[in-house]
Amino acid sequence: MLTITTIAGVRARREEAGRTGLRVALVPTMGALHDGHLALVRRGRELADEVWASVFVNPAQFAPGEDFERYPRDLERDRDQLAAAGASVLFAPAAKEIFPRPPATVIDLPALTAGLCGAQRPGHFRGVALVVAKLFNIVQPHVAVFGAKDWQQAAVIRRMAADLDFPVRIEVHATVREEDGLARSSRNAYLAPKARRAAVVLHRALRRAAAAVAAGERSGAALEALLAGEVAGEPLVRLEYAAAVNPDTLEPFERAGDRVLLALAAHVGGTRLIDNEVVEVP
Amino acid sequence: MLTITTIAGVRARREEAGRTGLRVALVPTMGALHDGHLALVRRGRELADEVWASVFVNPAQFAPGEDFERYPRDLERDRDQLAAAGASVLFAPAAKEIFPRPPATVIDLPALTAGLCGAQRPGHFRGVALVVAKLFNIVQPHVAVFGAKDWQQAAVIRRMAADLDFPVRIEVHATVREEDGLARSSRNAYLAPKARRAAVVLHRALRRAAAAVAAGERSGAALEALLAGEVAGEPLVRLEYAAAVNPDTLEPFERAGDRVLLALAAHVGGTRLIDNEVVEVP
Repeated sequence: MLTITTIAGVRARREEAGRTGLRVALVPTMGALHDGHLALVRRGRELADEVWASVFVNPAQFAPGEDFERYPRDLERDRDQLAAAGASVLFAPAAKEIFPRPPATVIDLPALTAGLCGAQRPGHFRGVALVVAKLFNIVQPHVAVFGAKDWQQAAVIRRMAADLDFPVRIEVHATVREEDGLARSSRNAYLAPKARRAAVVLHRALRRAAAAVAAGERSGAALEALLAGEVAGEPLVRLEYAAAVNPDTLEPFERAGDRVLLALAAHVGGTRLIDNEVVEVP
Repeated sequence: MLTITTIAGVRARREEAGRTGLRVALVPTMGALHDGHLALVRRGRELADEVWASVFVNPAQFAPGEDFERYPRDLERDRDQLAAAGASVLFAPAAKEIFPRPPATVIDLPALTAGLCGAQRPGHFRGVALVVAKLFNIVQPHVAVFGAKDWQQAAVIRRMAADLDFPVRIEVHATVREEDGLARSSRNAYLAPKARRAAVVLHRALRRAAAAVAAGERSGAALEALLAGEVAGEPLVRLEYAAAVNPDTLEPFERAGDRVLLALAAHVGGTRLIDNEVVEVP
């Protein structure tokens, strides 16, 4: 696996790949890799000839006071894991390479980012959209693979790619979970043992709400109350939001359509966790 | 010259060009072509193997009440002129092809669009940035050529391309003028004979202000007053703005740096015209 730190280096290697007709899958990450990321790399290998992963803790998507400084970083370990998972290229730029000066360009998707995490993290998705647009233009991948755990992020990127006609297929891959159901996340590393045990309530709440949909529940408000009630039963967890919305538009509904996105954000100890499930309505 | 009306058609032709290693220059236009546009095509031929021109009257860059409906359209004539100027491909999509649904994505460059035309045409440059980003992703040109007459537009696109790392060189080509100095513009077609004669005051004002810079004037306020005063001498012309700003940041200055952008917008009869000149400070 080749490690590249400059945009020019990526472009040169990409041109080479283009000449030989190789198809490239991009897996953008912020490092601190876990099985969820590696599943994206494996999925990328099914969809393209080479997987190029990026590791970049994007300052533009952290608000002041968020965990940018303490976000876990371990590039050596990330590199080993990516190589073992079969990635061909690791793009690991410094912040100055991606943002040589403050950007003057804002990419915003107001309708998709007004709710859920967007309501709690102002500017977060503008930072995500900006860096992903840059990565698309730098790597020029045929396909880009994102995790379903960050569902709103995936919805934003899918819509941005469609609206701007980026020549890239957006693939959203299923959330990878621990044995007890907790969604894999780099931020799980922050959790003390008691918080770690409490955190499983998120997945349990999603399962209960999914079961309610299967049993005939169609009311958005009822599903949200069910999610919130389940989380409230765990004293170590403080709910940020519980939502039942349209998975594509992220808009709330009175009565469910074909599919429902059940989504949660909560603080467990000092750590903010998110999880979600998309449920087909029978 | 090949005329293509679909995005899929452009992508297929572009992939072919990529396989043979051809370099492509894009000249985006709204049609109603004049010598200014054709100069961009000729410049594109110097910079690439093929010139691909687009003709698309972009609804997203017209505000309600502007001249979207009556904007001059003559695709047959445009096609003939582009073919004669040596373009290889004309991309002439219908509005539904470019905007199959209202876009959810906004591209904004607030610092570059707060002043000049941006102050008068809210949303205009968001519409420009959006459609140009789409064209860059559809055509994937090596170079894109824009006219200096729309200086603020060129500055916005140049900055957007840099901020988003679009793999395209932005070339800005000198304004083409009539014998008497009036900048070529598709909107000149709106001018009745008296208005047409009066309109030359814009270029005359720019020349006077440029001469003042050459003679030692460095004050932004004084240059703006000089521009405005010259235009005020022509009763058929109503000034919208007269500006002396930094050509890259478009910010006003007290004392001129290396270069000055002198820019004017005015209404002549019912027609809004713009013009500008970039002056090296001796």
